[in-house]
Amino acid sequence: MKKFQIKAAHRELLDAIDNKIDNKTKPIRSLGKLEDMARKVAMVQNTLQPELKNPHMLIFAADHGIAEEGVSAYPSEVTQQMVHNFLNDGAAINVFSRQNDMKIKVVNAGVNHDFTPNDKLLDYSVGKGTKNMLYGAAMNTLEFSEAIDKGVRIINELHEEGCNVVGFGEMGIGNTSSAALLMSALCHLPIEQCVGRGTGVTDGQFKHKLRILKAAQSANPVEKDNPVSVLKTFGGFEIVMMCGAMLRAAELKMLILVDGFISSSAFLGGFVSYPYLKDYAIFTHQSNESGHRKMLEYIGAPAILDLNLRLGEGTGAALMYPILESAVNFFNEMASFESAGVSDKM
Amino acid sequence: MKKFQIKAAHRELLDAIDNKIDNKTKPIRSLGKLEDMARKVAMVQNTLQPELKNPHMLIFAADHGIAEEGVSAYPSEVTQQMVHNFLNDGAAINVFSRQNDMKIKVVNAGVNHDFTPNDKLLDYSVGKGTKNMLYGAAMNTLEFSEAIDKGVRIINELHEEGCNVVGFGEMGIGNTSSAALLMSALCHLPIEQCVGRGTGVTDGQFKHKLRILKAAQSANPVEKDNPVSVLKTFGGFEIVMMCGAMLRAAELKMLILVDGFISSSAFLGGFVSYPYLKDYAIFTHQSNESGHRKMLEYIGAPAILDLNLRLGEGTGAALMYPILESAVNFFNEMASFESAGVSDKM
Repeated sequence: MKKFQIKAAHRELLDAIDNKIDNKTKPIRSLGKLEDMARKVAMVQNTLQPELKNPHMLIFAADHGIAEEGVSAYPSEVTQQMVHNFLNDGAAINVFSRQNDMKIKVVNAGVNHDFTPNDKLLDYSVGKGTKNMLYGAAMNTLEFSEAIDKGVRIINELHEEGCNVVGFGEMGIGNTSSAALLMSALCHLPIEQCVGRGTGVTDGQFKHKLRILKAAQSANPVEKDNPVSVLKTFGGFEIVMMCGAMLRAAELKMLILVDGFISSSAFLGGFVSYPYLKDYAIFTHQSNESGHRKMLEYIGAPAILDLNLRLGEGTGAALMYPILESAVNFFNEMASFESAGVSDKM
Repeated sequence: MKKFQIKAAHRELLDAIDNKIDNKTKPIRSLGKLEDMARKVAMVQNTLQPELKNPHMLIFAADHGIAEEGVSAYPSEVTQQMVHNFLNDGAAINVFSRQNDMKIKVVNAGVNHDFTPNDKLLDYSVGKGTKNMLYGAAMNTLEFSEAIDKGVRIINELHEEGCNVVGFGEMGIGNTSSAALLMSALCHLPIEQCVGRGTGVTDGQFKHKLRILKAAQSANPVEKDNPVSVLKTFGGFEIVMMCGAMLRAAELKMLILVDGFISSSAFLGGFVSYPYLKDYAIFTHQSNESGHRKMLEYIGAPAILDLNLRLGEGTGAALMYPILESAVNFFNEMASFESAGVSDKM
């Protein structure tokens, strides 16, 4: 994999940042998670006047060979149908991004469909879906590198447009299977602790899904401590492209808004090699997909929201965005005890 | 207390509402708490096209006689200083309400100060603060009725201006003591389970606070099953006025956005007599004030956010507001499986 230069976020201003937060007209620490976010944004941007600029929501979409084994409650065609829904402004992520002034770009990372050009579509397809992991790796080394590189290019374009905060969403029937396998390998956890019900499979379908994932593991002995090997064996095109995009975003000191289980699995793929990636990321929500809680524990990242979501698309990141704006706004706009003439503690 | 006519929210449209939610292009129940909120708003408004109109944030402020016993980390003057901060747009609630297009009204329910008129100020003072509960009830029966009635009038005014959703915030040095005493009586719980650190008292101050609250209980034997007796004995003017306002809001089928510990204690004061009050309320966040979790359990109301806030003012309600908007927006704007041509489950 391409090497990234990801340094720890700046710490020079940390005392000044904390001082600014603690002098606002409120009890110390009383804004909880908003204070943590304000501090993170100020450190990433290395300033006492942080700004969120030209926010984007990227939805990485791709198909998965493993879907033909019936691991999802929905048929594979739903991936391209939902991409059309995104392009036609009909999905949940459209509603939330529009409301919160985030620009949507739908990334075709490898959907089994030919799309007509569209302003919202970034056509960066690596192929018409991954291979079925029951019969070998999901992608080859060339495809892997292509996916990472295209993720980098997408972020370079956003950065040139002055964007400094990106939500990472996804769509891909079968991709909770991919994410569970990545998690199992990278976190050294049994697959049972990583697999969930995705879009909502029944008990019987869940047992079947688990059996298929175990078979995929048996078919693919991977070097668990080699993230490239793990990602190309189990990763979807959308997950690997997202991983490349997140790494590049951190390199460019942009804020990364991680969404749910799939988005976090892409983060995990980068995090195991680049632990400072975490300095640039906000874990926007705890999803209802079982496994996500354990994954965030492994990363050591408490989530901001817990709304029982299990939709993906970036919906958790889009819903959290106004709260991130609130964190930046209180830091920039609230009066201090001195400026407001309010008595501090007795 | 004045009688209120609070009926259960409409149920005629419930099947149609659930049907509309379940036909959106998303897995069933995958929008979690947003689906619950969309259902509640549609039921309260009895429509399949709900709307949030002219949202307001009310901040009820008052002083507390008990504050002279040193139960808070801050001196009493901070109540009026913070009211000035609200009027001058400097507080956290100003920042969040401005961001989220909620109009702020600061209610002087009984601050120990004479305010000059101000567009944002509703001067409904019942007195210059409650009496010290160590020496008898916080307020008399006339003051109690006046506070309830003024809460009703405030809501009548908002309703006439077309407002249908109200955030309930507060400010009052000493008011976590009041709320803890109300909770202990109304929920029949020992005071130890109700008292917390408020604005952030030290270990020593906390022990002192607990001792004072026990003394207040000994000094005031109340009829625990008589909310009027409990509210006038322990309630602050801001809490009782908020209680009246919430009850009137439910009567007028407006949405009530409950904030943290104090705001929930005002809700509790109404809820014990009018259990359908809950049909109109959204519990916007779980605060970090110990006791709030138990109070919400008693009410049987899970909160939407948990951001480790313990600031009050209505900040949790203001921060949650965009997510409520998202709930209404997905319900009104998302495509259905049919309209988007997306395949439903296999």
